[in-house]
Amino acid sequence: MSGGGEEGNTSYGRKSFQRSKAHFTDRITADGRDGWPVVADRYRLVASRACPWASRAVISRRLLGLEGALSLAIADPIQDDRSWRFTLDPDGRDPVLGIRFLSEAYDRRETDYPGGVSVPAIVDVPSGELVTNDYQRITLDLATEWTALLREGAPELYPKGLRDEIDAVMTDVYEDVNNGVYRAGFADGQEKYEGACARLFRRLELLAERLAGRRYLVGDTITEADIRLFTTLVRFDAVYHGHFKCNRWKLTENRVLWAYARDLYQTPGFGDTVDFDHIKRHYYQVHSGINPTGIVPLGPDLAGWLTPHHRQELGGRPFGDGTPPGPVPQPEQVPAQGRP
Amino acid sequence: MSGGGEEGNTSYGRKSFQRSKAHFTDRITADGRDGWPVVADRYRLVASRACPWASRAVISRRLLGLEGALSLAIADPIQDDRSWRFTLDPDGRDPVLGIRFLSEAYDRRETDYPGGVSVPAIVDVPSGELVTNDYQRITLDLATEWTALLREGAPELYPKGLRDEIDAVMTDVYEDVNNGVYRAGFADGQEKYEGACARLFRRLELLAERLAGRRYLVGDTITEADIRLFTTLVRFDAVYHGHFKCNRWKLTENRVLWAYARDLYQTPGFGDTVDFDHIKRHYYQVHSGINPTGIVPLGPDLAGWLTPHHRQELGGRPFGDGTPPGPVPQPEQVPAQGRP
Repeated sequence: MSGGGEEGNTSYGRKSFQRSKAHFTDRITADGRDGWPVVADRYRLVASRACPWASRAVISRRLLGLEGALSLAIADPIQDDRSWRFTLDPDGRDPVLGIRFLSEAYDRRETDYPGGVSVPAIVDVPSGELVTNDYQRITLDLATEWTALLREGAPELYPKGLRDEIDAVMTDVYEDVNNGVYRAGFADGQEKYEGACARLFRRLELLAERLAGRRYLVGDTITEADIRLFTTLVRFDAVYHGHFKCNRWKLTENRVLWAYARDLYQTPGFGDTVDFDHIKRHYYQVHSGINPTGIVPLGPDLAGWLTPHHRQELGGRPFGDGTPPGPVPQPEQVPAQGRP
Repeated sequence: MSGGGEEGNTSYGRKSFQRSKAHFTDRITADGRDGWPVVADRYRLVASRACPWASRAVISRRLLGLEGALSLAIADPIQDDRSWRFTLDPDGRDPVLGIRFLSEAYDRRETDYPGGVSVPAIVDVPSGELVTNDYQRITLDLATEWTALLREGAPELYPKGLRDEIDAVMTDVYEDVNNGVYRAGFADGQEKYEGACARLFRRLELLAERLAGRRYLVGDTITEADIRLFTTLVRFDAVYHGHFKCNRWKLTENRVLWAYARDLYQTPGFGDTVDFDHIKRHYYQVHSGINPTGIVPLGPDLAGWLTPHHRQELGGRPFGDGTPPGPVPQPEQVPAQGRP
């Protein structure tokens, strides 16, 4: 993996684009079978608000009300050659872990690990060791293993009876959409780009058909599947449309998906985690291979995210038998320049 | 001027973006005062369908019905290090001028000319010499000096009584729009980009206000001012929006300008000269400084160009007391891959 550009185990360079499986796949579970039991105040989630893979975990944590049990470190959206760093914090150090680079937690866990440093990552605070960077697993475990610590009224994000359907939807969304935009953007040739881009928009059209008559992807409540589609859609016009050349249409031009994305954006726990400033600066400034000038576009106009979506007319119960999360804790609020 | 990237006297490279004045400013006039009288079948217009400056001349020639009097050479949209070339023609030679590179006509006119090779260019066929590459002047002279050769029913594109107003509109459009997109796209820093981009969209908003209640920019007929705005607007979503980061909104998102552009596109003489394939390949493949991969996006969806615009409800007489031009001569028709 090349330095400076990893998010969710992304690797790109002069050769073709690949996404690795996570290397550190220990799980934090209720029974602690991997040696990492679910305990309040023991772990720290390290995320970047720029990264769609990390943003899944930030959203899940909010929806589930884990803010008090699992603290959050936000990395600078601009990595340097040592990758994700805590340059947003005083003295450039994470105040809880005391480290300047996320790689320090990787090093404590495994010396000379040759892979990239990626977010999301969960670090064991007492030892300072990385526990997991398994971007596909972390959110599922928050929803199903951390149950003793969830807030009252937390939604069921991965309900047992719907897991097969959720998994099937998520597989398609992962291949064609979540990862599809990267395959288009980092393609090393016209043919690969066109394949990825065509597949992406075919899948988006299918998803729009599915969502035309139902409010959420699976069942009638928000699930993990919606979180995973949202994190790509919210970045679509801001970065994937231009920077990754996913430009058959803008999200704002697809009536169904645009309303779906706005509905989620306006749901507590989704939009209140999104920092468009971090998103745009990360993609446009870090990927010098496709944007050598490092210039960050002024557009798009973000005001539309706050407009009425009318999706409640489709019914649905966003939080099922639960309730929306409360307000964002003050220290975690997204600064004004990151909001529409 | 750097090699390989000149269109309408564009120069760009590692330093800031500049647009030069044309170097060869002889005029072809009715009285032949510069030594170049208007004569049928003597001159050849060299253009690229990719280039907005050259496309002005291609549109004017069609509207005025000069196809029989002034022949047209279409350069390959992809320049090489010797600049514009005739690689679309059999054996890679322009069949009338017999040259492989437009630079050969420049060399016949002036040896060791240090500037760039740009389109539009008009070449004197008997001598093979370049007459003019004055992109700001060529179309005005077609409209006002070539009058003896115009088709019956040709419109007045630069009517005497409206020239002050046309010139004023064109000056603003040139600075902020025609050239503004290039200043944004080739900016060498964030501040310059933001200045150009903000100015571009401010001007577009003003133009949209102007065009909300009137069909054309000046008077109630098509003039040179409309031609010059059109050549930028027709490229807007296809290249300027993504490639040049002019992405506050797409043309399709601005109700007035999108309808105005479609109205002109659907007017004989405008859309029938536009080759979106040439446009996209040129910008994305030639400007390696801002698109190092050379990948050409699949989007945007072009089907909208053919949808109803309803601008006729504003009145206006597109050709004034004249008539629309006839069909495009078969050899000059834009291939299917360049059309919506």
